[in-house]
Amino acid sequence: MSQKNKALFIIFGGTGDLAQRKLYPALYRLYKKEYLSEHFAVIGTARREWSDEYYQDVVRDAIQDIADSDDHAKAFASHFRYQSHNVKDTEHYHTLKRLADSLDEEYQLEGNRIFYLSMSPSFFGTITSHLKEQKLVTDNGFNRVVIEKPFGTDYESSKELNDEINASFDEDQLYRIDHYLGKEMVQTILALRFANRLFTDSWNASSIDNIQITLSEDLGVEERGEYYDKTGALKDMVQNHVMQVVALLTMNPPKSFTMEDVRDQKIHILKALKEPDMSDVSSPEFIRGQYAESEDGSLIAYREEDKVDTESMTDTFVAGKLTINTDEWRDVPVYIRTGKRLKEKMSRVDVVWKKTDNELFDESPTHLTIHLGPKEGVELFLNDKKIGPGMDLTPLPLRSLRSEETIEQSPEAYEKLILDVLIGDETHFAHWGEVAESWKFVDAIKKAWKESDQPIPLYPANSMGPKEAFDLLEKDGRKWVWNP
Amino acid sequence: MSQKNKALFIIFGGTGDLAQRKLYPALYRLYKKEYLSEHFAVIGTARREWSDEYYQDVVRDAIQDIADSDDHAKAFASHFRYQSHNVKDTEHYHTLKRLADSLDEEYQLEGNRIFYLSMSPSFFGTITSHLKEQKLVTDNGFNRVVIEKPFGTDYESSKELNDEINASFDEDQLYRIDHYLGKEMVQTILALRFANRLFTDSWNASSIDNIQITLSEDLGVEERGEYYDKTGALKDMVQNHVMQVVALLTMNPPKSFTMEDVRDQKIHILKALKEPDMSDVSSPEFIRGQYAESEDGSLIAYREEDKVDTESMTDTFVAGKLTINTDEWRDVPVYIRTGKRLKEKMSRVDVVWKKTDNELFDESPTHLTIHLGPKEGVELFLNDKKIGPGMDLTPLPLRSLRSEETIEQSPEAYEKLILDVLIGDETHFAHWGEVAESWKFVDAIKKAWKESDQPIPLYPANSMGPKEAFDLLEKDGRKWVWNP
Repeated sequence: MSQKNKALFIIFGGTGDLAQRKLYPALYRLYKKEYLSEHFAVIGTARREWSDEYYQDVVRDAIQDIADSDDHAKAFASHFRYQSHNVKDTEHYHTLKRLADSLDEEYQLEGNRIFYLSMSPSFFGTITSHLKEQKLVTDNGFNRVVIEKPFGTDYESSKELNDEINASFDEDQLYRIDHYLGKEMVQTILALRFANRLFTDSWNASSIDNIQITLSEDLGVEERGEYYDKTGALKDMVQNHVMQVVALLTMNPPKSFTMEDVRDQKIHILKALKEPDMSDVSSPEFIRGQYAESEDGSLIAYREEDKVDTESMTDTFVAGKLTINTDEWRDVPVYIRTGKRLKEKMSRVDVVWKKTDNELFDESPTHLTIHLGPKEGVELFLNDKKIGPGMDLTPLPLRSLRSEETIEQSPEAYEKLILDVLIGDETHFAHWGEVAESWKFVDAIKKAWKESDQPIPLYPANSMGPKEAFDLLEKDGRKWVWNP
Repeated sequence: MSQKNKALFIIFGGTGDLAQRKLYPALYRLYKKEYLSEHFAVIGTARREWSDEYYQDVVRDAIQDIADSDDHAKAFASHFRYQSHNVKDTEHYHTLKRLADSLDEEYQLEGNRIFYLSMSPSFFGTITSHLKEQKLVTDNGFNRVVIEKPFGTDYESSKELNDEINASFDEDQLYRIDHYLGKEMVQTILALRFANRLFTDSWNASSIDNIQITLSEDLGVEERGEYYDKTGALKDMVQNHVMQVVALLTMNPPKSFTMEDVRDQKIHILKALKEPDMSDVSSPEFIRGQYAESEDGSLIAYREEDKVDTESMTDTFVAGKLTINTDEWRDVPVYIRTGKRLKEKMSRVDVVWKKTDNELFDESPTHLTIHLGPKEGVELFLNDKKIGPGMDLTPLPLRSLRSEETIEQSPEAYEKLILDVLIGDETHFAHWGEVAESWKFVDAIKKAWKESDQPIPLYPANSMGPKEAFDLLEKDGRKWVWNP
């Protein structure tokens, strides 16, 4: 692949945290694996005035832990240029274009351009229209726009944002990053589901009792209080990551793994989501929570966090019951929960099977756990005969957990996704239809909460959320498989 | 249970190898676990003249490796008496009865008797009729007869034997030992199949491609040449163990785990076995083999073994394709193989699933391996996404193998089966209908081999059998999952 991937990256927000923590290391890993060769260049842009040298130092700092050698890091960083930039200033785009064109020639990039928008969405429209108007978009190569979340703050704003971008770029030029879709174990869901007869036979409403998705974080809001307090868990996690995982777990097999086929199946699921029933205020189908001080007093309450409103009603936790209104899935609830300051950092899926139709055993329900991260791997919990007389049962855990070394050596989400952008594979990105449906679903919940006069349930930091999150399953006669 | 199990064991063949290697240790383990209390006694009988003291010494020798202490072993052995006995001499049964009655009183055994026939089947009829005639059978307790294999040498002889025994004891008093049915992992087959939705959904002809059963031994005939040369692998292993495993793997769920329900389902399968097609002499559905010298010359050929005919045509290896002629299983071949002097001692089942119906992947077939012994446990081989770009697959082994310690501490087959006899549970024994059907099946193969003018295929000791065993699957476009 080394000769094939030629591109100029123009990173808006090149001085930012995400660029330094994720993008530069990801680009370096692609360089190390020769997915990027001599034929690439990066322009970092932001308001600040940096020199190329300073920028290259920043890049080298960002990759120092993973670099093969100083020389190799230096060779990599030599492909980086910095251009200070005001996104509203037309003139600046001319400057940018001259630099871009010269790098294109210098590195023989054949007009391939990746515009990476790693900054506030409020500028997306401005930037993309200028890119088009000031002809940073080339005729001879590909032109792709990478967009980081949040993609809007509700359906209306996301549609507006999308329309603005669409004025300059087509949907098939847009790569909306949902880093969950770049996770190895998230991509593995489709392989597990569709490459194993044992699962294709049983992954349906007649066999599955319920599906559970948990994306739990142990950290609080840290330094993101200002952003988070305006956003909350529902928008920050459910609208994107959780909804994508729901779609992957329940979509029909696509005809192929092309973007179109995968997207069509995901949209089919997201469109079929029943609007949650929030009418019973004492036990709505979606509940929220906010972390209070931990029981031992060592962790402060959300409302005491830096840059958070002391009377904030922001949800740091969400749990809900989703119903997919298709013949395939109507009777199989998908329970989801996500939140901050929970007991453990863990993203996992639990698929719980029904009992068998025979009545020979007093069975425990069997389930498959897919560990999405930081633990990665698969665990299948079956029933085994208990050793000894009779036919009593005992759990049979069948495990394949990836070693820390394997996880360490696996390509990280950003590395995978940037490679996909380079080779033009949009399969693992969030497409407009999915984003739109997700927002509509989330907006309805948000609206119900807003109209509710109920106080937000509090949960102690370092717990697994408020009591309501457990009630949600208990009233259906179920419980969370994972209950640390 | 300690107070409940009261019984007198009368062991015919009490000086024999099986009694010393298996029965006495099994009885001691039951004593240690308090399934046997003070209320048990054993009479060992055989031709030889032994004193009680000598017999008790033999018993203590037999359990010395597993005894808690010398005192405990002594206390256990004190329940044993010896009576020399000629099975054809009526007077001897009177003597035996007097001893039995006195022990019954001494240990308060409430008339419960277990007659354990651990000797040549040619005496079974004589013994059982005398037991009845000379009133060793009690009126107040249970009277159970345990029979060791071989139960006949073909259908005719087994029927004759059965009729003889039935003249004195009913079928529900008979416990025909097939020690495979006492193995923990063999009993586990039904739990795995019927207590797991994932398997009940997929354990059928629409999902399973084929089933493979391997019972391989690494040893040769050792000191059993005389017996084995008259018997061969087909009668020694297929007629009993292999057929039972086939039945367990394919039977419908029984209504309950009572003897009657399990037996009915097993017989349903065995009756439905298609007579193997042996008409194509170059590739019949059942093939035999005999071990030749190993390639490195370290292991001698079967025909050079002690007490084996130097021109023997005895099968030390059998492989075959079984067809179960029911709507459920007609299209799913069950391949079996068993033999001596194979590469490794291993009893295992491999259930191979079909590919999925979608064409998204270039899948390898997935399979479940049930390790029956000496390795014990379950391995499920699924397909996983290969780490990296794209949707390539890699095997995903999900393992749960029992530790050596767990296996060591698991009840051994004889211990389990003798406990079943004690508590009157006939589920894990071979019932007459099963034995009869198995013999009919095996007789047909034996007959075809006899009529064939083909030489017996030879295979080098320490291989996995003759080429014909591999051809058997290859001509169906398949191969053995386990191919060491």
